[in-house]
Amino acid sequence: MNRKDFFKTSFAGAAAVALAGGPVAAIASSCTAAKPKNNTELKLSFQSGKAIGDTYAEKFDYMESLGIVGFEPGGGELVRNFDELSKALEGRNIKLSAICAGFDGFILAEDGQKDAFDKSMRTIVDAAGALGSTGVIMVPAFVFQNPCKPHTPETRQYLCDQLYELGQYALAAGTTVILEPLNREEAFYLRLVSDAAAICRDCGSDGVKCMGDFWHMKEETSDYAAFMSAGPKYLQHVHVASRGRRINPGEDGELDNYVSGFRALKEMEYQNYVSFECGTAGDPAVTTPAAVALLREQWKQA
Amino acid sequence: MNRKDFFKTSFAGAAAVALAGGPVAAIASSCTAAKPKNNTELKLSFQSGKAIGDTYAEKFDYMESLGIVGFEPGGGELVRNFDELSKALEGRNIKLSAICAGFDGFILAEDGQKDAFDKSMRTIVDAAGALGSTGVIMVPAFVFQNPCKPHTPETRQYLCDQLYELGQYALAAGTTVILEPLNREEAFYLRLVSDAAAICRDCGSDGVKCMGDFWHMKEETSDYAAFMSAGPKYLQHVHVASRGRRINPGEDGELDNYVSGFRALKEMEYQNYVSFECGTAGDPAVTTPAAVALLREQWKQA
Repeated sequence: MNRKDFFKTSFAGAAAVALAGGPVAAIASSCTAAKPKNNTELKLSFQSGKAIGDTYAEKFDYMESLGIVGFEPGGGELVRNFDELSKALEGRNIKLSAICAGFDGFILAEDGQKDAFDKSMRTIVDAAGALGSTGVIMVPAFVFQNPCKPHTPETRQYLCDQLYELGQYALAAGTTVILEPLNREEAFYLRLVSDAAAICRDCGSDGVKCMGDFWHMKEETSDYAAFMSAGPKYLQHVHVASRGRRINPGEDGELDNYVSGFRALKEMEYQNYVSFECGTAGDPAVTTPAAVALLREQWKQA
Repeated sequence: MNRKDFFKTSFAGAAAVALAGGPVAAIASSCTAAKPKNNTELKLSFQSGKAIGDTYAEKFDYMESLGIVGFEPGGGELVRNFDELSKALEGRNIKLSAICAGFDGFILAEDGQKDAFDKSMRTIVDAAGALGSTGVIMVPAFVFQNPCKPHTPETRQYLCDQLYELGQYALAAGTTVILEPLNREEAFYLRLVSDAAAICRDCGSDGVKCMGDFWHMKEETSDYAAFMSAGPKYLQHVHVASRGRRINPGEDGELDNYVSGFRALKEMEYQNYVSFECGTAGDPAVTTPAAVALLREQWKQA
């Protein structure tokens, strides 16, 4: 809140003091208002498999019943079901959030897999832009992908150059590409949100963004700092799961604390989605609504 | 401040309201108190070359005249001048801050340079511990150092294992070792504070810490997030310089803004030193006191 608003609030507090003679409460409330804005909305999203139902109509009915406003299909599903998905979204209080990969090859490949990536990624980006998605999630290289360029300054510059071209293509298509850091077992090349954010800055295209995944963020020393390093300029998407077994938030008990990360999202007035990428060890009809309630409660606490 | 202190402050504010009938001011002051603690002290430190004077006596007189409470010698200088330095520090309001490298070889060397590192580093660590230094600064590998282990998961694990041994040795000696991320032109292996902090955590020794250098932190997207990723648990030292030419803070004008980083240091109640590592383009007798004043002013603003 700016200084003017602050004094407005303070004066309201002051009036309450004078009238009610309950100064401590009045001051407490005006001080609460002095904290970072807490009116940022938590926009939850489900991946296709998380939404219960066989058809998009059933999935979206279920999501709307839980107040889920974002849908994250895979890139292959998006392209394959483009018309059906486009129709199913009409008149819904649900928008496409990010698109989860689905391309062939990878951007750091030293062979034909690079051409396969370029071609298939642009097809997905076109579809994502046409349906107003926030962006297409990509990993520069998984540990199992070979032959891969070595981890050198030259490769980082190559990645920035390639991402610039791709980011500009995505902007023209009305969307973005979103770099996802993973934990070291899955992708050693990019593990930290701050590293992804620096690549977004250095490649120089507003069409290149990054994200954080609470599961992979066990690599981070601080959820709060990780999200703050990306900030509203680069943070385009968030994935959430339980923090012990990558199932529904809450199924791993005390481990499933998202408050510090959520506080960063609220402080930066994050406008994008927090999307479920996880399974469940229980009955989804029970654990999924419970997870939604848990995240909303922790968002309030943040 | 905790809740109890908060209500204490609020009640003081409330009393002022009742007595003075100046509620807005009273509430404003109690709300200021509700912000992150601002009473953390800025402890400034000079490297040996920054302190004007030919002898330690002259250097320390000059530093005390500017209220500089930390001294950061090179590792070679520390070992060479151990007795002289030890005597010169007696009765001064100046303590050793960190020790700036000075060892032979490097920890990621694939040849005899690793043995040279182990031997010379431990000699410096012994001296640093004996004089109560906060830690010995080290870079895992500069870009010009070869042969160097490749940037792989195995090398990261090797680094953590080696750092554990070194960190435990440093703890026993009464000090620590401090990982310094540099910009990519100087050290591609370690560029981000969050990466250094994750290594501190993963190596498992309380004797392994990290630092941030405002000059090298041009690699970071956020000074604030970088320091917050290390936090009070891992952040053991900070280097400062102007942000355009690595000279005295203030000599590069508008570029020399440290407020966001300082805010992180205040929020985490940072207890270590902010040490000058820079030259000057002007007369040090003029630019150095001006830099000290600038940093103190920005610390107040943070």
